[in-house]
Amino acid sequence: MRRVLVANRGEIAVRVIRAAHAAGIEAVAVHSDADAEGQWVRLADAAVHIGKSAAAKSYLNSAALVEAAVSTGSDAVHPGYGFLSERPGFAKEIGDAGLTFVGPAVSTIEMMGDKAAARGAAERADVPIVPGSPPVATVDEAVAAAEDVGFPVLLKAAAGGGGRGIRPAHTAEELAEVLPAAQAEARSAFNDDSIYLERAIVGARHVEVQVLADGHGNVVHTFERDCSVQRRRQKLIEEAPAPGLAPETRQRINDAAVRLARQVGYVGAGTVEFLLTPDGEFFFIEMNTRIQVEHPISEVVTDVDLVAEQLRIAAGLPLSFDQDDVSLDGAAVELRINAEDPDNDFQPTPGNLSRLDLPGGPGVRVDTGFVAGDRISPFYDSMIAKLICFGPDRDVALARARQALSELHVDGVPSTVATHRRLLDEPELRTGAVHTRWLEGLC
Amino acid sequence: MRRVLVANRGEIAVRVIRAAHAAGIEAVAVHSDADAEGQWVRLADAAVHIGKSAAAKSYLNSAALVEAAVSTGSDAVHPGYGFLSERPGFAKEIGDAGLTFVGPAVSTIEMMGDKAAARGAAERADVPIVPGSPPVATVDEAVAAAEDVGFPVLLKAAAGGGGRGIRPAHTAEELAEVLPAAQAEARSAFNDDSIYLERAIVGARHVEVQVLADGHGNVVHTFERDCSVQRRRQKLIEEAPAPGLAPETRQRINDAAVRLARQVGYVGAGTVEFLLTPDGEFFFIEMNTRIQVEHPISEVVTDVDLVAEQLRIAAGLPLSFDQDDVSLDGAAVELRINAEDPDNDFQPTPGNLSRLDLPGGPGVRVDTGFVAGDRISPFYDSMIAKLICFGPDRDVALARARQALSELHVDGVPSTVATHRRLLDEPELRTGAVHTRWLEGLC
Repeated sequence: MRRVLVANRGEIAVRVIRAAHAAGIEAVAVHSDADAEGQWVRLADAAVHIGKSAAAKSYLNSAALVEAAVSTGSDAVHPGYGFLSERPGFAKEIGDAGLTFVGPAVSTIEMMGDKAAARGAAERADVPIVPGSPPVATVDEAVAAAEDVGFPVLLKAAAGGGGRGIRPAHTAEELAEVLPAAQAEARSAFNDDSIYLERAIVGARHVEVQVLADGHGNVVHTFERDCSVQRRRQKLIEEAPAPGLAPETRQRINDAAVRLARQVGYVGAGTVEFLLTPDGEFFFIEMNTRIQVEHPISEVVTDVDLVAEQLRIAAGLPLSFDQDDVSLDGAAVELRINAEDPDNDFQPTPGNLSRLDLPGGPGVRVDTGFVAGDRISPFYDSMIAKLICFGPDRDVALARARQALSELHVDGVPSTVATHRRLLDEPELRTGAVHTRWLEGLC
Repeated sequence: MRRVLVANRGEIAVRVIRAAHAAGIEAVAVHSDADAEGQWVRLADAAVHIGKSAAAKSYLNSAALVEAAVSTGSDAVHPGYGFLSERPGFAKEIGDAGLTFVGPAVSTIEMMGDKAAARGAAERADVPIVPGSPPVATVDEAVAAAEDVGFPVLLKAAAGGGGRGIRPAHTAEELAEVLPAAQAEARSAFNDDSIYLERAIVGARHVEVQVLADGHGNVVHTFERDCSVQRRRQKLIEEAPAPGLAPETRQRINDAAVRLARQVGYVGAGTVEFLLTPDGEFFFIEMNTRIQVEHPISEVVTDVDLVAEQLRIAAGLPLSFDQDDVSLDGAAVELRINAEDPDNDFQPTPGNLSRLDLPGGPGVRVDTGFVAGDRISPFYDSMIAKLICFGPDRDVALARARQALSELHVDGVPSTVATHRRLLDEPELRTGAVHTRWLEGLC
């Protein structure tokens, strides 16, 4: 691999450029109208304008991206996360153009994007799944299925992902009420209105396992992350490893993830998401067939460069290590610093970043796609930076996170900095006793 | 220890505040007139104005510092590096006030500050020393001593340190010429005009070993650093570990440093400096009885927080680990980003830092005492930031350093950023084949 096109923007585009350059690979950036001055454009070896500011006209325009890759002589395309990263059609177009998609095979993306097929694969791999239903089309079907699965249930879009399009229902009446809305939202978000039901696991934590698999039969995990601190199903704080996990549970959940990856012949970096109950039971939710926003916390506690390994795998090389080489060293927390107004229900607050003073020192890593003076655009997500703090144990990691927050200055847009300061002082967060509904209960 | 006063400024003051806060200890900052708005002042739990901008009236004013510690209820004083950090009188005043000096015993600082005594200790510890002379007062004495030691020789201030006051002489004539100047400089810098001679070791590398010793008899090393890339004896680029060191040489030099620390009953963090010849012979130069500027590269390759250990040791606790727990993991490089004009013989260029965009991502740590908008003061050293880049091996660390330099933007003052970019592309730096005169040969 000599040159990779990064089909994304913001911090993940910068992250891929850094990994490419560290491996001696050239990186080509892409940008919309709004992003012409993006930091990733400045850092890349070349940059291609791919369309108007609206994502549908640029970062979701697969034809423009493939054309940009071909015209710049790129031999691979890294999709980042979000946008087209889990669209099998995009991976296929890249392959059809004779280029390498940095990610799993088209058929794997398809299977994991189809929640029913993914659950089937988990069952075959002997990985426990949340009791759930096949797709339901009508209220009558849904109520019958919910009685089978057991209330409370969650309505999920079969084509969904990233937490979007999920609604709870505690009774048949509530289910009848929310089903049409869930279908409409699924249709508009994913162009597919199939909805299925899952039992809502109460008091559970969101624990996900990072896996890496090469084309030579090697499948490893780099341990798990806890992403229970969520708001509207969007992760706000993530930790690695999951706090308070019994060693035996850690072993079981990581083994389960590797088993699933092996079962489906996975090649690339991926994340197997689970719900973990307070008594150590876990259930497969879904597999994300891409790099995750929160991947750095796994990197700093295992010393594995996940994006570098993605590039190695895509280049046909074996992983640079095997499972025995990976050990958990310390603890890490990631705080997502977003341009959102905590006083106005966390509505995005695009605007000009007039100031961005980043924290530093031992155990602090910052991943951002912006510098002071850049604009947080209304066209895309509201993330300003990811603050990754780590140390020999969880207490030091959290103390460094508090310190780093006191050093971080964001001016020009309201941000979640103060929210994080408050959350880090909550007793449940200090002890690690959080679950996926904890934050909503707090707000 | 509940509260520590940081008797310093700039990045090392910020570094100590970070370590204190991570350990749950309050930190008190001090500042001169010029530094009222310093980042360390903003980050500390309290701050005390200690005098006028000239260092002699503030950061070198031991009475004002001790008074600041006492008046704020501090129970310890961290001296940082430079300023009063190696003045035994300062440590004594702190002890006399009933406070803890974060550093070794007064008698140890005295011994290591007296180069002849330090050489004597090395000899007793069976640590090889550079052939040298006792103090010489007259030209006749000096010439006789130099013929004994062997030309070329270096003239060194007995009370010196930090590379200041060192002059070479290749012949008796040159020696006669430079001795008076060396004496005058020593008198003005150290208030002591004693000069001694050492044989100049040609083609040698500057390799220094980090040691830590607690008050319970534990003495460990955290491996060595190579600081050969120097200009006017000021370090510009440092690496850990020393590149290309034979494992047997590494073992011998690290063991020698531990032996010396043990011999003198050392307590605290310290650095044993050596000259290493191309054939693996090494000679003790001096021991620095304080934390070094370049300590972070040792931290990132060993996962030891040296400043946290300093605080533990000062609090009377044992080290948090023993020698068997310390392993070398990867490689690191530190680039000193200074406000200096490379086009004007690297003269300091104080001024307003109108822009300071810091690099980030995996394997990048930045230690700085400044944010955009701060002033680099003419009263103190010209350092803007330390860029510490690390990775699984030296090639990745250097590739990340190149990338980080491309991300770092300093506006408002000329800086060494472009110089570092050029140096990292030099063939000798790429292969690690540098020595202490390499950079001067290049310029």
